Amino acid sequence: MLYGALETKGRRMLCAVGNENGQILERVVIPTTTPEETMPKIIEFFKSKLDDSEGEAMTALGVASFGPVDVRENSKTYGTILHTPKIAWRNFPLLNTLKEALNNIPVGFDTDVNAALLAETTWGAARGLTDAAYVTVGTGIGMGAMSGGKLTHGMLHPEAGHIKMSVVEGDNYKGHCPSHGACFEGMASGLAIAERWGKSPKELADNPEVWDLEAKYIAQALTAIVYILSPQKIILGGGIMRQAQLFPLVRKYLLENINEYIDTKELRNINSYVCPASLNGNEGVIGALKLADMEAAKEA
Amino acid sequence: MLYGALETKGRRMLCAVGNENGQILERVVIPTTTPEETMPKIIEFFKSKLDDSEGEAMTALGVASFGPVDVRENSKTYGTILHTPKIAWRNFPLLNTLKEALNNIPVGFDTDVNAALLAETTWGAARGLTDAAYVTVGTGIGMGAMSGGKLTHGMLHPEAGHIKMSVVEGDNYKGHCPSHGACFEGMASGLAIAERWGKSPKELADNPEVWDLEAKYIAQALTAIVYILSPQKIILGGGIMRQAQLFPLVRKYLLENINEYIDTKELRNINSYVCPASLNGNEGVIGALKLADMEAAKEA
Repeated sequence: MLYGALETKGRRMLCAVGNENGQILERVVIPTTTPEETMPKIIEFFKSKLDDSEGEAMTALGVASFGPVDVRENSKTYGTILHTPKIAWRNFPLLNTLKEALNNIPVGFDTDVNAALLAETTWGAARGLTDAAYVTVGTGIGMGAMSGGKLTHGMLHPEAGHIKMSVVEGDNYKGHCPSHGACFEGMASGLAIAERWGKSPKELADNPEVWDLEAKYIAQALTAIVYILSPQKIILGGGIMRQAQLFPLVRKYLLENINEYIDTKELRNINSYVCPASLNGNEGVIGALKLADMEAAKEA
Repeated sequence: MLYGALETKGRRMLCAVGNENGQILERVVIPTTTPEETMPKIIEFFKSKLDDSEGEAMTALGVASFGPVDVRENSKTYGTILHTPKIAWRNFPLLNTLKEALNNIPVGFDTDVNAALLAETTWGAARGLTDAAYVTVGTGIGMGAMSGGKLTHGMLHPEAGHIKMSVVEGDNYKGHCPSHGACFEGMASGLAIAERWGKSPKELADNPEVWDLEAKYIAQALTAIVYILSPQKIILGGGIMRQAQLFPLVRKYLLENINEYIDTKELRNINSYVCPASLNGNEGVIGALKLADMEAAKEA
């Protein structure tokens, strides 16, 4: 099957086609400006794939969208972007616009982080698991979650970047989140690191103090995720996690936090329990291919 | 159908029979001492219900167990009590012992808090919802969770009593949790209230300072639950929540914490979003009836 995959980001839209095995066959990048300017380019790309004159025609599309976004399938505003700081995109009916422009083919839709997790549970580090979390630590912080084999939606979708942090002793930084100050994103995102230390995360690579503190905040959030969601694995992605020195520290502090209160084979195997994203930065778009496949199966 | 329901607690075992509509028809209470002493009494009660000479015979049993407990159906130790402070019960194969003694009838099994939530989503305040949380604040603190229509298990099961708290300014209490000090349970359980203020929670009913602080900790935990699990409703049960003055405070602080970062119809309807348990303290045992019903349907 030929499927389309759209991963939306604040700076760029990644449009791709691929197959039901998660293989990407072609991709183009379109800058994210306004819906008026950006959407026609996205639609043009995918429309050309509906035509089978050059080979197989695309039969379904998957969308991995930045949030907040309405992912509740039975909602009137399903597939609409919600109260994002990207003001031009607020209330934009992304799913319906695509579906209408693309002859009403099946369009699967979820958050970028849920899609990334879906890719990891289908083809990556969490293959075959039913309960897992994907946390991305980059400019911002987001989380995808799966429970009992289903991606978590509920009232909205996870927003674990905004859980409140207990400030680490000696850290005088107040947090940059305009809504919450010292939440996980406010204290541990790439923006927070840069503001706290006055240098970009990359320039701070050789400063162990930076990553020790960063790991404490990440571990604190992971502890809350373990106690609330009980995932079988936690996958960490995003630009900040390219600092591989973070992984052993995060694992150490997570175990210290839990302090043997729960004892599972997963926690005894901590290097596997907390692990890096495994799909070469393609987890979002590959997850969108899986969303397309699931939607096609549902509508078949 | 006649079903059995067993709710296990540290002090007493509640054995009941009821029907598929969640109606309790008979109940007896047996003190919890050791498995050697307590289990024969439990088995005697339920065994008598297998006999149809006095009417309908019991066809399935549901167990709502204190944790930690293995609730993973495909695990070798499914239904076994894990590392509980109730030492006599550690590693006790509760499910298998009951199943063997009761002619291998279907036995549904989950945590007491997941069972309570199941009762609420089936017959109570969360009826028809697919994503919800049940938090019990009593001597200890526990949480049941449902995501996408399924009770949350994953690696173990939720243990949200142990998420780390950001200590409220001016609160010098260090927390009583032996594993985590200032976790949710360490700061906000009935034991914590009694230790911090030197009086029992009941004696403190008229002290608004106590409940204001308590509400801040509960709201902090609820904020983490909202951001990680995204429930459509949060139900609060347990002895401490009988202080009805807590509800408006918890709702106020939860909304303050979220600070309009997410905007949903559920949060706009906060009195319904955070609500008391609705089944007169019977949620655990009624949930066990539903567990029996589900297991009977599964094995049919």
